[in-house]
Amino acid sequence: MIDFSELKIDALLVSGLPNIRYLSGFTGSNGMLLVMPGSQILLTDPRYTIQASEECTCAVRTVKGRPLHEAAAGLLQSKRLKRIGFEKARLSYEDYAALKEHLPLGASLKPVAGVIEKMRMIKSEEEIARIRRSVLTNSEAFQTTLKRIKPGITESDVAAELEYQMRLHGAEKPAFETIVAAGAHSALPHARPTRKILNGNELILIDMGSCQDGYASDMTRMLFLGKPDQKTRSIYNAVLEAQLAAIATVREGATAQQVDRSARRVLKEHGREKEFVHSTGHGLGLEIHEPPRIGHKEKTRLAAGMVITIEPGAYARGLGGVRIEDTVAVTKNGCEILTPTSKELMLL
Amino acid sequence: MIDFSELKIDALLVSGLPNIRYLSGFTGSNGMLLVMPGSQILLTDPRYTIQASEECTCAVRTVKGRPLHEAAAGLLQSKRLKRIGFEKARLSYEDYAALKEHLPLGASLKPVAGVIEKMRMIKSEEEIARIRRSVLTNSEAFQTTLKRIKPGITESDVAAELEYQMRLHGAEKPAFETIVAAGAHSALPHARPTRKILNGNELILIDMGSCQDGYASDMTRMLFLGKPDQKTRSIYNAVLEAQLAAIATVREGATAQQVDRSARRVLKEHGREKEFVHSTGHGLGLEIHEPPRIGHKEKTRLAAGMVITIEPGAYARGLGGVRIEDTVAVTKNGCEILTPTSKELMLL
Repeated sequence: MIDFSELKIDALLVSGLPNIRYLSGFTGSNGMLLVMPGSQILLTDPRYTIQASEECTCAVRTVKGRPLHEAAAGLLQSKRLKRIGFEKARLSYEDYAALKEHLPLGASLKPVAGVIEKMRMIKSEEEIARIRRSVLTNSEAFQTTLKRIKPGITESDVAAELEYQMRLHGAEKPAFETIVAAGAHSALPHARPTRKILNGNELILIDMGSCQDGYASDMTRMLFLGKPDQKTRSIYNAVLEAQLAAIATVREGATAQQVDRSARRVLKEHGREKEFVHSTGHGLGLEIHEPPRIGHKEKTRLAAGMVITIEPGAYARGLGGVRIEDTVAVTKNGCEILTPTSKELMLL
Repeated sequence: MIDFSELKIDALLVSGLPNIRYLSGFTGSNGMLLVMPGSQILLTDPRYTIQASEECTCAVRTVKGRPLHEAAAGLLQSKRLKRIGFEKARLSYEDYAALKEHLPLGASLKPVAGVIEKMRMIKSEEEIARIRRSVLTNSEAFQTTLKRIKPGITESDVAAELEYQMRLHGAEKPAFETIVAAGAHSALPHARPTRKILNGNELILIDMGSCQDGYASDMTRMLFLGKPDQKTRSIYNAVLEAQLAAIATVREGATAQQVDRSARRVLKEHGREKEFVHSTGHGLGLEIHEPPRIGHKEKTRLAAGMVITIEPGAYARGLGGVRIEDTVAVTKNGCEILTPTSKELMLL
């Protein structure tokens, strides 16, 4: 629920598309949602008239021949709304300035941050069911593709196959650019698939997510073509131990920080804490990255209904990098690991 | 070239990623580019240190532990820059406010619009070569997929196959969500692929684009499973005639408006002008939609080196919709049609 009096606003103008979708059901690419206590109105353009009326439970107004924020300003006037909150991270300076210019006399704009994002942190049962479905699609796509990974194939062709299988299994699209990074590439946390041919005797990192029915999933698994040496085994086992420790810390009431520290503590015991250069995880849902961030400074308390990733990694220049990632749902006493895929280092 | 004195600024802070890529070569997901007369400096975070130094010809500064706009403000101070332009459509209100807060004493921010976008309208030979490559990949993916389209397949599986083939032919990803719309769906200009099974005796609209080496392509073609009736033939021929007329109008010096009107005039002769509910085309390059817009109010004069789409359509409720789209490069005396795919109604 939006606390209008706490925010000292009469209405909130929502411009972020995932936030609009969350509140109204609208999935189009152009919209603004005016949220007032007890009611809301969606503004969109004529391309989406039919779609919006099918998707939304709230009132819909089609705006023709002028920008939505101009129409929004008119709506504020007719509703006599004065103190208008807007999403400061989700409105461009240009749209802010245009909105301000058309504002009715006596009305004022107030920047707000993270209001809807905070509501979105706790998923409903229906949302968790959708994420679960997205996670399963993602794992099915991974399993099907595994059979086709052989020496001679390129990183980029593996990525193409993974995304193809996601779609055949029901996803609308990948939730982000699929990462397939072999050998030294795996040591770059944000590697893009290249024309590099998989040779064997190297680590292969696959980080993939599906978007299904609007909801994201996210998983990282490691493969090895051939027989891994002791060094590779040792980095893999350290990261796996860190991932399991972080998962064991997840429960309602634990802080994001505590979860992050569990992973970091294990990597430190293995002398690998400096190789862990990112945070332990993030929320996901309508977007692939949502609050809470599972980082070492994050004091957010986890609550039942949050869905987060747990993905520690260690990146050793030259040797390669290892990351292991599941999507988990926070519960009262722990968490449910949604990702069904085995976490052994897969030897192909 | 940026005309700093005309804009009355000492420097331009570029925040739009495609604009940053255009000016510096940087392809990462987090960056800000400070452009001064004769030099530029890229700010990015530690994830991109190596990548940025490989990709950019300009100076690169890695910012650790604080937002880029804070570091940018520090840079303005050390360079003693006073009048700072920023991209008003490509900076959120939040980042604008944070930048303003950290601004050195005596410095001021000036919103500017479309400066780099205007430079990007005229493509270099290298850019046209990349678009040509992207267009060819796109057409190859279409041809390969054609063989697999048979009654019984779903819209969504055709879309999956098209995107898979794009990647196998060299694209990084689709340039936008591929549209495969059969029967009544084809009458919605922004239809999304569904689980609808292709039955035969209906129009199938395919609108697809690849993104290769950063550059977009865009093509729409129509298929018919079975034998089209006279009504379908007639709407198809009207749109094809309109598309050819618009292409014949393209040349350096013609206005965008003239091109749009050529298409509209033909559809009017066929009594279909009300079924043409969008504009005739748009520029493309590093983004799938770039200036100039080819619309009925657009006075922009075309110039050699622009690359635009020509895509009139007619959408008849019940019967279905037809759109035919090529990517073309404007030349001194006309245009070069980059799209090699046949424009006959394809019968499968």
